[in-house]
Amino acid sequence: MKKQFSIPKGFVFSAVKSGLKASGNPDLALAEAPLGASAAAMFTKNKVVAAPITVGKENLKRTRGRIRAVLVNAGNANCGTGASGYAAAKATCDAAAALLSVAPEFILPSSTGVIGVQLPTEKVCGALPALVNARAGTAEGVTQFAQAIMTTDTRPKLASAEVAVGRKTATVLGIAKGSGMIHPSMATMLVYLFTDAGVAPAVLKSVLKNAVDPTFNRISVDGDTSTNDTVALLASGVGPKISGGSALKHFESAVQQVCASLAHQIVSDGEGVKHVVRLTVEGAKTDKQADQIARTISHSLLVKTAWAGADPNWGRILAAVGRSGVPVDPASVSVHIGEHQVCAHGGAVKFNAKSVHKLMQEAEYPIRVKVGAGNGTVELLTCDLTTDYVHINADYST
Amino acid sequence: MKKQFSIPKGFVFSAVKSGLKASGNPDLALAEAPLGASAAAMFTKNKVVAAPITVGKENLKRTRGRIRAVLVNAGNANCGTGASGYAAAKATCDAAAALLSVAPEFILPSSTGVIGVQLPTEKVCGALPALVNARAGTAEGVTQFAQAIMTTDTRPKLASAEVAVGRKTATVLGIAKGSGMIHPSMATMLVYLFTDAGVAPAVLKSVLKNAVDPTFNRISVDGDTSTNDTVALLASGVGPKISGGSALKHFESAVQQVCASLAHQIVSDGEGVKHVVRLTVEGAKTDKQADQIARTISHSLLVKTAWAGADPNWGRILAAVGRSGVPVDPASVSVHIGEHQVCAHGGAVKFNAKSVHKLMQEAEYPIRVKVGAGNGTVELLTCDLTTDYVHINADYST
Repeated sequence: MKKQFSIPKGFVFSAVKSGLKASGNPDLALAEAPLGASAAAMFTKNKVVAAPITVGKENLKRTRGRIRAVLVNAGNANCGTGASGYAAAKATCDAAAALLSVAPEFILPSSTGVIGVQLPTEKVCGALPALVNARAGTAEGVTQFAQAIMTTDTRPKLASAEVAVGRKTATVLGIAKGSGMIHPSMATMLVYLFTDAGVAPAVLKSVLKNAVDPTFNRISVDGDTSTNDTVALLASGVGPKISGGSALKHFESAVQQVCASLAHQIVSDGEGVKHVVRLTVEGAKTDKQADQIARTISHSLLVKTAWAGADPNWGRILAAVGRSGVPVDPASVSVHIGEHQVCAHGGAVKFNAKSVHKLMQEAEYPIRVKVGAGNGTVELLTCDLTTDYVHINADYST
Repeated sequence: MKKQFSIPKGFVFSAVKSGLKASGNPDLALAEAPLGASAAAMFTKNKVVAAPITVGKENLKRTRGRIRAVLVNAGNANCGTGASGYAAAKATCDAAAALLSVAPEFILPSSTGVIGVQLPTEKVCGALPALVNARAGTAEGVTQFAQAIMTTDTRPKLASAEVAVGRKTATVLGIAKGSGMIHPSMATMLVYLFTDAGVAPAVLKSVLKNAVDPTFNRISVDGDTSTNDTVALLASGVGPKISGGSALKHFESAVQQVCASLAHQIVSDGEGVKHVVRLTVEGAKTDKQADQIARTISHSLLVKTAWAGADPNWGRILAAVGRSGVPVDPASVSVHIGEHQVCAHGGAVKFNAKSVHKLMQEAEYPIRVKVGAGNGTVELLTCDLTTDYVHINADYST
């Protein structure tokens, strides 16, 4: 794992084993802003939400966008656990808050793991003192946090960027987990962004939304949303203040850059993924229609299995375009795999099958689908569907 | 293969090898009503349609629901083939019509196979004389027709039913192909229904729609529609006339019974399918909402892979309900696998995991999801997603 990341001032990190993961690996993580932080967060749109999501929303509302610490456990989603699950999420916040000498609503809780199993609060609360003791603003602390929140992820996901604000520098650090990005709905995507810039909650909210839309919302391979998905942005304010102007623009751009890197890391580490595809749909009437077509293509089992076989089967892409619900003239559809045109006017063209097959064996390549002469366009980061995905998910809870 | 089917009077069947299938197996099939037949057909709703679909629609319109013969080739979808594909479909109809001494518009053409490859008309037309010579109203003819239209199907699909009309009997015979029913959109579902009853085209149309809605439209695992999907009902009129009353009701019921059997055979023979699930969603506000929820569950890769692992992971079902787009109170959701309740009020209940796991290892079992107290309900026939599906579809065209 690379450790080339910058750590924003005003945060400490730690992780310990609480016994939630069957592997016995660290599974409880804390990121604290000892002086507090302003915060914004985006949560799952699933109607079924995990208890920590409910508690986190309530807390953020109560504190009007102030957060002291993020408390994350992996190995148990605390979802489908009813009133006792809600009480369990509150209890862990209470216990952490007491140790940090702060009111419980300043804790933002997250959980990821199997749905429908009660969270053993005694395990979490029992491990909290050690977790609080281990806090450090070091690369080790950050790395341990990133590793503890992993579930089926094969590697921790980190990215950072720096922003010049006058003669000062603000740092943005992002830590993410998410490996079932083929179905981001369930394996859960958790993303925590930390910055030492001083930014008001309302501004953070807008910065976060602008960063999430073109990144994490463009890797959703099937439009799914987990019961536990969370993206949070915390600003300690220890560094330079940012409220507008070019500093805000640069800050927005840095946050977006970190999100784009994490989004890419999540897809690359998707369950069973062998190939990442940068799918562009262009020539649609609107961006929304381009998005609808791109999602239909990227959700097609037949398209995804063809990609797994490095098979330039453009007919499956054409058929997905046709059933996307967007009115498209088949005769106006063309498909490029890398620089190779494989379909023109909705029909076959001669191409070097050997070269295309070779390109499709690479870890990542672009596919461009033109569906007309409009200005609507979208780029989605997506991936193939392999037998490994089926193995991972047929064996998950058994 | 069972040969327990009845053959309606007034039809002859045949199949030959034309060289379209790489396997060298028979791939060209003919079903003819020598005295003609009234006919109704339903075609794919995909915006991208294969050339034979376009030609078939035109022909049925021109003849106002009269058909002399169905001509089917497997091994080439004749889709994404542009104007020359259209000309090829017309050319095969012309050649068959000449041999049968009838106008070309009385031929209903179908194709299934790989998309984007020109149909070699010389192969099809070259094999037509032998095809026409081989016609027979025998079980062998029917079986050969059923085998020739197969692609990734592992077995031919046949069903029949009889209807008493006064002191006479009418027979309904159905022949289907379709194995990629996990993605019916592409592997193509072709269904031909033959009856010796005398039924007017307009009545046939309504009978067909009523039979298709609760059968073939309830096995679509992902809402996909192929570029080539066709369901046709042909009535030779050699047997008893049916125009209304209880005879029509019985006839409708017989057609529906044949369709239900074929639909079940198609799912059972789905690519890589190990388990067929009879999924019921009930308690929704409307049937439409129940359908939307059932389709979301049955299209979820995580649910389908859990079924492959005989894993009673109800949390994945709960999360699918939550993201279906239908407003549902999670606390009102319950899940039964067979007779075993595995989830109540959106949460865990104790169940005998060993018994449930054992049930889920059977070839077919029911799952019932209750989402509220409404009257909306739907039953979908669906299936698991196995590594075999990925193997079959990652290797298809290469």
